[in-house]
Amino acid sequence: MRREHVRDLLQRVADGAIDVGPALDALAYEPLESLSFATIDHSRALRQGFPEVIYGAGKTPDQIVAIARQMAAHGDGVLVTRLPAGAADRLLSAFPEIDVNPLGRTAYLAGAEPPPVGQGTVSIVTAGTSDLPVAEEAAVTLAALGNDVARITDVGVAGIHRVLARREELVSAAVVIVIAGMDGALPSVVGGLVQAPVIAVPTSVGYGASFQGLAPLLTMLNSCAAGVTVVNIDNGFGAAVAASRITHR
Amino acid sequence: MRREHVRDLLQRVADGAIDVGPALDALAYEPLESLSFATIDHSRALRQGFPEVIYGAGKTPDQIVAIARQMAAHGDGVLVTRLPAGAADRLLSAFPEIDVNPLGRTAYLAGAEPPPVGQGTVSIVTAGTSDLPVAEEAAVTLAALGNDVARITDVGVAGIHRVLARREELVSAAVVIVIAGMDGALPSVVGGLVQAPVIAVPTSVGYGASFQGLAPLLTMLNSCAAGVTVVNIDNGFGAAVAASRITHR
Amino acid sequence: MRREHVRDLLQRVADGAIDVGPALDALAYEPLESLSFATIDHSRALRQGFPEVIYGAGKTPDQIVAIARQMAAHGDGVLVTRLPAGAADRLLSAFPEIDVNPLGRTAYLAGAEPPPVGQGTVSIVTAGTSDLPVAEEAAVTLAALGNDVARITDVGVAGIHRVLARREELVSAAVVIVIAGMDGALPSVVGGLVQAPVIAVPTSVGYGASFQGLAPLLTMLNSCAAGVTVVNIDNGFGAAVAASRITHR
Amino acid sequence: MRREHVRDLLQRVADGAIDVGPALDALAYEPLESLSFATIDHSRALRQGFPEVIYGAGKTPDQIVAIARQMAAHGDGVLVTRLPAGAADRLLSAFPEIDVNPLGRTAYLAGAEPPPVGQGTVSIVTAGTSDLPVAEEAAVTLAALGNDVARITDVGVAGIHRVLARREELVSAAVVIVIAGMDGALPSVVGGLVQAPVIAVPTSVGYGASFQGLAPLLTMLNSCAAGVTVVNIDNGFGAAVAASRITHR
Amino acid sequence: MRREHVRDLLQRVADGAIDVGPALDALAYEPLESLSFATIDHSRALRQGFPEVIYGAGKTPDQIVAIARQMAAHGDGVLVTRLPAGAADRLLSAFPEIDVNPLGRTAYLAGAEPPPVGQGTVSIVTAGTSDLPVAEEAAVTLAALGNDVARITDVGVAGIHRVLARREELVSAAVVIVIAGMDGALPSVVGGLVQAPVIAVPTSVGYGASFQGLAPLLTMLNSCAAGVTVVNIDNGFGAAVAASRITHR
Amino acid sequence: MRREHVRDLLQRVADGAIDVGPALDALAYEPLESLSFATIDHSRALRQGFPEVIYGAGKTPDQIVAIARQMAAHGDGVLVTRLPAGAADRLLSAFPEIDVNPLGRTAYLAGAEPPPVGQGTVSIVTAGTSDLPVAEEAAVTLAALGNDVARITDVGVAGIHRVLARREELVSAAVVIVIAGMDGALPSVVGGLVQAPVIAVPTSVGYGASFQGLAPLLTMLNSCAAGVTVVNIDNGFGAAVAASRITHR
Amino acid sequence: MRREHVRDLLQRVADGAIDVGPALDALAYEPLESLSFATIDHSRALRQGFPEVIYGAGKTPDQIVAIARQMAAHGDGVLVTRLPAGAADRLLSAFPEIDVNPLGRTAYLAGAEPPPVGQGTVSIVTAGTSDLPVAEEAAVTLAALGNDVARITDVGVAGIHRVLARREELVSAAVVIVIAGMDGALPSVVGGLVQAPVIAVPTSVGYGASFQGLAPLLTMLNSCAAGVTVVNIDNGFGAAVAASRITHR
Amino acid sequence: MRREHVRDLLQRVADGAIDVGPALDALAYEPLESLSFATIDHSRALRQGFPEVIYGAGKTPDQIVAIARQMAAHGDGVLVTRLPAGAADRLLSAFPEIDVNPLGRTAYLAGAEPPPVGQGTVSIVTAGTSDLPVAEEAAVTLAALGNDVARITDVGVAGIHRVLARREELVSAAVVIVIAGMDGALPSVVGGLVQAPVIAVPTSVGYGASFQGLAPLLTMLNSCAAGVTVVNIDNGFGAAVAASRITHR
Repeated sequence: MRREHVRDLLQRVADGAIDVGPALDALAYEPLESLSFATIDHSRALRQGFPEVIYGAGKTPDQIVAIARQMAAHGDGVLVTRLPAGAADRLLSAFPEIDVNPLGRTAYLAGAEPPPVGQGTVSIVTAGTSDLPVAEEAAVTLAALGNDVARITDVGVAGIHRVLARREELVSAAVVIVIAGMDGALPSVVGGLVQAPVIAVPTSVGYGASFQGLAPLLTMLNSCAAGVTVVNIDNGFGAAVAASRITHR
Repeated sequence: MRREHVRDLLQRVADGAIDVGPALDALAYEPLESLSFATIDHSRALRQGFPEVIYGAGKTPDQIVAIARQMAAHGDGVLVTRLPAGAADRLLSAFPEIDVNPLGRTAYLAGAEPPPVGQGTVSIVTAGTSDLPVAEEAAVTLAALGNDVARITDVGVAGIHRVLARREELVSAAVVIVIAGMDGALPSVVGGLVQAPVIAVPTSVGYGASFQGLAPLLTMLNSCAAGVTVVNIDNGFGAAVAASRITHR
Repeated sequence: MRREHVRDLLQRVADGAIDVGPALDALAYEPLESLSFATIDHSRALRQGFPEVIYGAGKTPDQIVAIARQMAAHGDGVLVTRLPAGAADRLLSAFPEIDVNPLGRTAYLAGAEPPPVGQGTVSIVTAGTSDLPVAEEAAVTLAALGNDVARITDVGVAGIHRVLARREELVSAAVVIVIAGMDGALPSVVGGLVQAPVIAVPTSVGYGASFQGLAPLLTMLNSCAAGVTVVNIDNGFGAAVAASRITHR
Repeated sequence: MRREHVRDLLQRVADGAIDVGPALDALAYEPLESLSFATIDHSRALRQGFPEVIYGAGKTPDQIVAIARQMAAHGDGVLVTRLPAGAADRLLSAFPEIDVNPLGRTAYLAGAEPPPVGQGTVSIVTAGTSDLPVAEEAAVTLAALGNDVARITDVGVAGIHRVLARREELVSAAVVIVIAGMDGALPSVVGGLVQAPVIAVPTSVGYGASFQGLAPLLTMLNSCAAGVTVVNIDNGFGAAVAASRITHR
Repeated sequence: MRREHVRDLLQRVADGAIDVGPALDALAYEPLESLSFATIDHSRALRQGFPEVIYGAGKTPDQIVAIARQMAAHGDGVLVTRLPAGAADRLLSAFPEIDVNPLGRTAYLAGAEPPPVGQGTVSIVTAGTSDLPVAEEAAVTLAALGNDVARITDVGVAGIHRVLARREELVSAAVVIVIAGMDGALPSVVGGLVQAPVIAVPTSVGYGASFQGLAPLLTMLNSCAAGVTVVNIDNGFGAAVAASRITHR
Repeated sequence: MRREHVRDLLQRVADGAIDVGPALDALAYEPLESLSFATIDHSRALRQGFPEVIYGAGKTPDQIVAIARQMAAHGDGVLVTRLPAGAADRLLSAFPEIDVNPLGRTAYLAGAEPPPVGQGTVSIVTAGTSDLPVAEEAAVTLAALGNDVARITDVGVAGIHRVLARREELVSAAVVIVIAGMDGALPSVVGGLVQAPVIAVPTSVGYGASFQGLAPLLTMLNSCAAGVTVVNIDNGFGAAVAASRITHR
Repeated sequence: MRREHVRDLLQRVADGAIDVGPALDALAYEPLESLSFATIDHSRALRQGFPEVIYGAGKTPDQIVAIARQMAAHGDGVLVTRLPAGAADRLLSAFPEIDVNPLGRTAYLAGAEPPPVGQGTVSIVTAGTSDLPVAEEAAVTLAALGNDVARITDVGVAGIHRVLARREELVSAAVVIVIAGMDGALPSVVGGLVQAPVIAVPTSVGYGASFQGLAPLLTMLNSCAAGVTVVNIDNGFGAAVAASRITHR
Repeated sequence: MRREHVRDLLQRVADGAIDVGPALDALAYEPLESLSFATIDHSRALRQGFPEVIYGAGKTPDQIVAIARQMAAHGDGVLVTRLPAGAADRLLSAFPEIDVNPLGRTAYLAGAEPPPVGQGTVSIVTAGTSDLPVAEEAAVTLAALGNDVARITDVGVAGIHRVLARREELVSAAVVIVIAGMDGALPSVVGGLVQAPVIAVPTSVGYGASFQGLAPLLTMLNSCAAGVTVVNIDNGFGAAVAASRITHR
């Protein structure tokens, strides 16, 4: 639609029906609207090979399947996060080859082309077993975005030898995602052990003064290890995308 | 700079040096950058007659005077809010005709052209005398934006007859700005008395459980009078601009 | 009742049974009580053509139907918001012609007379699809109050081209309601694009550090676009009434 | 047990087995323990005629009935607040004459003797119909404590004439309990209309920035009407006891 | 002004120039405005003998003296609270007989007539010596309102024998004001010892997790002694007015 | 694995294949990794006789039983806290001799050897009956850790004589755990009565301004009794371990 | 005074002027008041050898010196914490031998008798140099209470080897006080290394999302090392008293 | 010290004085202590070429100069952040060649060797001029760590064309640091424009509901642009280190 509008303007310049000056003004004064088609094209190009992501929370199984069908029909990969109850079965019926991760509450269907490969391994470190659902959401997202993933689980700081025993693996990672609830202390320790980027994810596990993850969120924002960055509570997906931004530079 | 870039492109279309199709693509794929000059022009046009606003907090008197000089040199009006200590004297030395409002901590210098006139009177209602600085900031801003202002002061709800006695004035206002600290209850009463738009401004006066204005802010967001809108704590300037958006439709 | 009391007093003045001075005092010293019948009359007059509004939360379907019947019997329009589960079916049985909006959780039954028509179109802009329920509550309320409504959906700032592509529509709106959860950033962008009044509605979508809508609420109160006003979290109804106050000046 | 200990000591004094000085020291150095029996006796005397109160939240119907039986067996009145689901039927089976108030979620069984009568009427004022459950909890408690109660309902400040129309009743009350959610503004208005003690009760009705009653709680603590006191959110029971402390002086 | 308007109306009724019906309507439809003079008169009558109160925070010494002069000229008592630095000397110069309380930051000048006398003694209980400024503000206010005051100081619950040793005094009080910071536990103990009304005042003394008085505020709102009411943090004035409302019933 | 690595290094030193200097460096530069096997051994030794603890929240009954089987197979004691619904029956089927405490939501199976015995009695004091579940969690944990436990229940400060009557017991305790919700005032009183360590546990009982235990948490952190320490809301387990650290010095 | 009252009663029992039964009742019904002299005596006995503590915040140097003089005159030790500006010089003039700690803002003057000696060493561990003032307040208090103190400083978890290198010292401590701001992670690591009681002290160092110590406070309350207890922000004094309660069992 | 201990052990293995097995056990059971010298060496090696960082807040100018001297004496670079008043002059006297940045409150003295060079340019984007101090802290830190820095200033979203006009620069950055106060909306827009890692820094500029930076902090944590990470409020230093971790992979 608008593309036609700009094409007409250019054609009239080409035809000499309008001078360069007025054409310049015309473009200048309503340029933002004229971008819609281009930006969409461009952004599609940018996202080539990336799976679209369906945030499942608040959507019905029917809605999720419908969106997934549309995406799959274009050959795009399909990643669903925060899979609501009942959606997994519906997706498996619709896409028998879809990969459902019950712990991470994700479903992933590869696209026609593989995603661009990230550089290096992303290490996902968890403080306790209760943090695993967030870790799995991150792991599935990372894989869908073309990253190599390694998991280091249950190495909370109350048994500090556990994380120290894995230092070699940590040091070799390209990016480290550290997931912890309760005291959220693990990223500070890991941030002091490695030179790689460290992305901290607070989780809402725990009770009382955890205040649904506020406690580890504040801990991580105040990490005494310089250069630790933080994402939203339970946001394994966001941490994975942040890590993938780094590995795909 | 960028304007030249687009001009060149158009010229090349006019010269037949480039076809319409490639020119269209060129515009489509980097369009956002090409807007910079236009948007600035356009926004200047939009703001025609509006005074630029200098938020004084955190600026030195020297910085404020310097910015004001630059603006006045273009014939623009100059409005300074949150005037820091010492800035008033410096401004008065530089611009003897500038209008300083010590209570509202504002300074205003009219531009070469008067601002567009708003429709109707904006009524500024305050609950207590401590709310007057915020009211004055709003009043000066409203006047600078071309609005007629009426003040109704010290009509807090603990003496409910005071606001009721001014109902006639309130009903005739085009917009009502209600400024209150502590319990922040006045907008609910005023919102029930008038049909005009009501903009509530919480103030940070008070102590203890006022929590620097959090209490009246929450009160106003929960107003039982439907259709009351709220701006930031102590934000007389913002309320005035919101009102002026309404009177200048 | 009290009307009779005042009538008696006036009659006694007319009859010369009481002098003007004492009658004046009598009116002066208990005037507030004497207003009950008048205010009710007056307020009814004020609300002429307005639908009464039933806030459904915490009411049983039976209660809602009963109130709706009473209102409909007077020829008033009936608007129900926050429709609880089960209430839609009960209302449809009682009023087959009632218009239920499942997404917005509203029900609307037109009154005997149409509402007064507002000036201009109110544009409802949403950042994401999760914000649609609040948008629908606003849209239904606006229509019930006699306003023309336009919807611009799913134009969150992470894909900034989406909202820019709709700038023309935005600029032509009389009032813009911007609804956003999570980062709540959209009103700041829209507030910078248009001169019309902008009413921001934070939503409780999201998780973690969204804190049930606190995050976008604070964002909007701190909007760097001057003159954006804010209503309560998820309060599509309130935003609609605020907009209608503006269009009905 | 301990009573015997003191009795023994006194007996030994009476018998001349111990001198006054050492006995004085004995009493002085472990007196706190020696009070247990006395304090219980005394407190029973103090509470003569008062119903014991069972806070039902978190108790099973069986537990509530068991406690009620024990109290009733002593001729005490039984007041249950925050009646959990299912408890009403169980109580009615056990005590056919018990008075269940479903709205206030209370049950009351009069004791053998009526409670001491309080001086004057306690007026319970509510801002909206959603505040009625708290009002009923207060009303039942007040009656159980021997007070005369008057109700003034649905007089929120957005329709300020409603509360003004009831001023006469308000002025004649011995104590006024004002119950309001959302903006919590009503106590400020009432506090300015009457000279009697005003006890404000915030309620958790509403949504979003009400934060489960935090908003009206802060409003009331910051009331611009001097001398308004506040109790916990939804604490109709506490307000009633506070009022009864005043009427029973 | 308006009084004349109503007088004219009544005169015209007396003269037969207007019928009772239309006069009734005239009064009914703009009654609120007509109250202004009456309510003022009435409220003055109500407040007869009460000292006006000047909240000194945010006022300059000059402003305070000016207001005080105006009040004293009418024979009213003058009470100033939250006396800012430098105001005491200025007030003493202007009113040599004024009574300045440096600890409570108050100044009091008796009016021409003594205030009405309250029934019974108001006991002011403090947990620690840091709470004394708030206690003095309360004490001066109570005296100014005609109340008999008794002080019980430094009886915090960590040395529980201290408050128990004063039980007799407490039991004989008409109203008890309990002032405490930090853990704010004292009102719960006092509330369990006496049957009189208990008004709790949290103070902002302490540090860290006291959060400027939030901790004792929440403690007091959750008091396990039924019927304890609460005022704002550091609000000795408000507690005194609340107590005086009780003693002047 | 790594143990082999160090063994190889030592063997090569023994064989003269590597000098002492380089071997020292090898150990020095990657020592942390080499600790994994040792630390595990050591920590097992440290925990000898201690029951492992299964935090049941968020685990399925199946998972809990599986972990418990594994632990019991090694002769370790099994302690499960926060037992989810349905887990008790499953545990009793698997371990008929397991001791389930429904109130404390715990299950405990003694190990092959008794735990080391702590010195002195730990007194668990509760303010109200609603605090009993937390008290039971603490009591079961204490017993499992080899401590002697005494319970003092329902001695909240609103009836101060109740806790005073138990002073003798309190004074004789080695450690006192004080559990209270709502105003959380009890630890301040107890802390003033005894010289022993006092550990305060806030509970989430109550409603409104209790904010799920935030109120008593803040109260306890601000206790006016010096030397009271605090654990997380509802954390009976943590208080018990803290007490056991003291009794096992 | 009251002592005389009880003596009289006992004398009358000894004289046969009153029977045991009535005397028992007399004691039972007003026992609390009769304790005042005794409790004071008793508590003085309990505190034998303990220095009284003057909390300096909010006191003038004059007041502090006056209180200290009174205490020293009785031979008691004098400990002042939170020494305000100027008080140190005044104290040194009055008591040349007083020990002022500028970093910890304390002053200590030994009493006539040394305090009872605590069992074992209390280890004070700090995460960073900014935590030293709190550590010094704790150290001075501990010494004043008769404890042996060891300091381990600047061993924050971002350089985890620092605290691990001190494990031997930590393991040998009787009690460990861990002081940390910002992320507050250190107590979790230390709690996992030692079996001794661990008392965590959050500090208000840092900025932004530290929220004046709220972040480390929440971290510590959620410590994943079981049995860590917490005191108020910056409360080195409280931690020291808590530790001393343990060492003096 | 400990190094000697391990050396002895190894020597004894070399000498055949101890077998491999026992030596292995000896190393296994006290390994953590044995690391102290190694870890220090290792960490020194790791940090080679990095400037040490002095956090100036809370330190006196004397302390800062003393630490800086010590560092410079070892040839290390010296970076001081949060320079307190008066420290700049003292540093310049001590190190005439030191580079003081008054806006960023930093001082930097290059070390003997240049820092390792990072890959790509780090773009620092600010929403408003008030955010510049934080931006300068980041810029100085980045340069000190060997990074190339580009600044894009004053491109807040209320004038969306400003940031769009700089898209080309943004797209070419290796890492983008986005600094914004008030609504904190800019990172969401930038995160949608670029594929590079985006690090968001909330600032404490603004007032009222900004709550010292809490508002933009929450906004950024809830960014609708996936993969945006966040650091503490005003933490330009931390953002710079995080970016440098990425550019130095």
